[in-house]
Amino acid sequence: MDGVAVGVCGTDKEIVAGDYGWAPPGEDRLILGHESLGRVREAPQGSGFAAGDLVVGVVRRPDPEPCGACAHGEFDMCRNGRYTERGIKERHGYASQAWTVESEYAVRLDPGLESVGMLLEPTTVVAKAWEQVERVGGRAWFEPRRALVTGAGPLGLLARCWRAARPGRPRTRPGEPGAEAGPGRGARRDVPQRGHRRGDLALRPDVVIEATGAGSLVFASMAGTATYGVVCLTGVSPAGRKLSVDAGSINRDLVLENDVVVGSVNANLRHYHQGAEALAKADRAWLERMITRRVPLERAAEAFTPRDDDIKVAITLT
Amino acid sequence: MDGVAVGVCGTDKEIVAGDYGWAPPGEDRLILGHESLGRVREAPQGSGFAAGDLVVGVVRRPDPEPCGACAHGEFDMCRNGRYTERGIKERHGYASQAWTVESEYAVRLDPGLESVGMLLEPTTVVAKAWEQVERVGGRAWFEPRRALVTGAGPLGLLARCWRAARPGRPRTRPGEPGAEAGPGRGARRDVPQRGHRRGDLALRPDVVIEATGAGSLVFASMAGTATYGVVCLTGVSPAGRKLSVDAGSINRDLVLENDVVVGSVNANLRHYHQGAEALAKADRAWLERMITRRVPLERAAEAFTPRDDDIKVAITLT
Repeated sequence: MDGVAVGVCGTDKEIVAGDYGWAPPGEDRLILGHESLGRVREAPQGSGFAAGDLVVGVVRRPDPEPCGACAHGEFDMCRNGRYTERGIKERHGYASQAWTVESEYAVRLDPGLESVGMLLEPTTVVAKAWEQVERVGGRAWFEPRRALVTGAGPLGLLARCWRAARPGRPRTRPGEPGAEAGPGRGARRDVPQRGHRRGDLALRPDVVIEATGAGSLVFASMAGTATYGVVCLTGVSPAGRKLSVDAGSINRDLVLENDVVVGSVNANLRHYHQGAEALAKADRAWLERMITRRVPLERAAEAFTPRDDDIKVAITLT
Repeated sequence: MDGVAVGVCGTDKEIVAGDYGWAPPGEDRLILGHESLGRVREAPQGSGFAAGDLVVGVVRRPDPEPCGACAHGEFDMCRNGRYTERGIKERHGYASQAWTVESEYAVRLDPGLESVGMLLEPTTVVAKAWEQVERVGGRAWFEPRRALVTGAGPLGLLARCWRAARPGRPRTRPGEPGAEAGPGRGARRDVPQRGHRRGDLALRPDVVIEATGAGSLVFASMAGTATYGVVCLTGVSPAGRKLSVDAGSINRDLVLENDVVVGSVNANLRHYHQGAEALAKADRAWLERMITRRVPLERAAEAFTPRDDDIKVAITLT
């Protein structure tokens, strides 16, 4: 595979800071890059791929001795923690000019997605999150009318894009929080701050996709949904952020409203295929605007220094 | 119906204190009693009931103009809050020497349950809670091995009894918290106190049925499950109990482990039928020990003055 680009996310920054990540056994270094994009240089016959195909590599692999979930193909739901991850956990990532990937963990993209295909991996996280909402919500009658997406980083924005691409699902309404049309200068202003209060969720959404990881907003979401609300948490927050909460109210609200809070991380193969389909249909210019900086590999370190108007920063490999 | 007995629970005490409950429209008073038990005096032909049958009345009724959930028979998941409840919300309860109930909201009990049948209503809450765990857990591969039931009040004890009566579901193991065999003097000592710390959940259960409503334990449960953990909250707590929590850790844990927290309240008709079946099979002596006081109707006020060794207090109506 010829590397085309990788996206940089918070997990990469945690790895660079030494707070997360594991090098492959016996090695001192980990090659970064899990939001991948490459072009097939050479593919074995019968693999289903041909030279020139635009491809994204899946991040996670199950352990050779799989847990029950991994044995059922659900490595995103791994129970024993012995999975590995390209660019994160015990496997080198995709931030190389050349890399290889098993054909069963390669996903072909629409050829027109060369400039934005590194958005597939975060899109898979969003695909899984919405699926979790539908599965958990589907435990009884479920016709949600109002959804709130918190956060205007890549996950939050893609969660809105995903919603728009899937008719028949709940939509945000114009003028409501979460209804912002797309990214661009100023989009980051949507990001809720730590001082966010419960009263701010007065719209009582049926569904919340929480994509900030900010504790105050996580708990405001828990208490702020409509009856039978579903909150899907997708933002990874650092430990040690203390917060004073009205524990009685939050518990009472969850119980009396039959509410659910579901955490969602990583994604399965089917989410990659769903994501590839959604990206192919999405507004290309909208996706382009999400990549606010493109840094060449030789200046890769710059990608890890945040700037105010960053949404998604990519490292280009060609 | 000749009233046999009603059970008294925390909701009754909230109503008596004036903190909860609504009298029927146009009335000043609400007859209490939602944990019912009666004996059929007279039943219309074709109703499926005959004089002498032991019967429990269902608590909730859907609004005549039902929401989507109520229209699908899921009044326990009512979305618009316009349901009514016998003994709680706009309908008189069952704490009378004589009462009537619609045959479609009456559930026949095994004739041997005369002394403990008022435990059916809390059992239905438990039946629904376990069903929620199974439905939410069933969104992916789910074979839980370890369950923790917090609280040794009627809900906690019945949640263990329910588990024991349903083979093939996860069981608590001897010697583990939650494995206590049954109620009796001292059982209340199991009830976790507000100072409960996260480390106390070191056993990392796959499933927690939280039946205390104590904020510290609610949040300890959220953070303390195994990967893909399911916490079902069933304890109703008063608002205004502030707690300092590590919001970052709780959110991070829920996300990275694909955990779920699901609130569960009330019960559907099917849970009454499941509960009636479970009670018929349960150890009668064990159930008897759960009724720690029986107070006659004329001294009913005593039932609302808590005693240290109370588990379930019943008001007898005959």
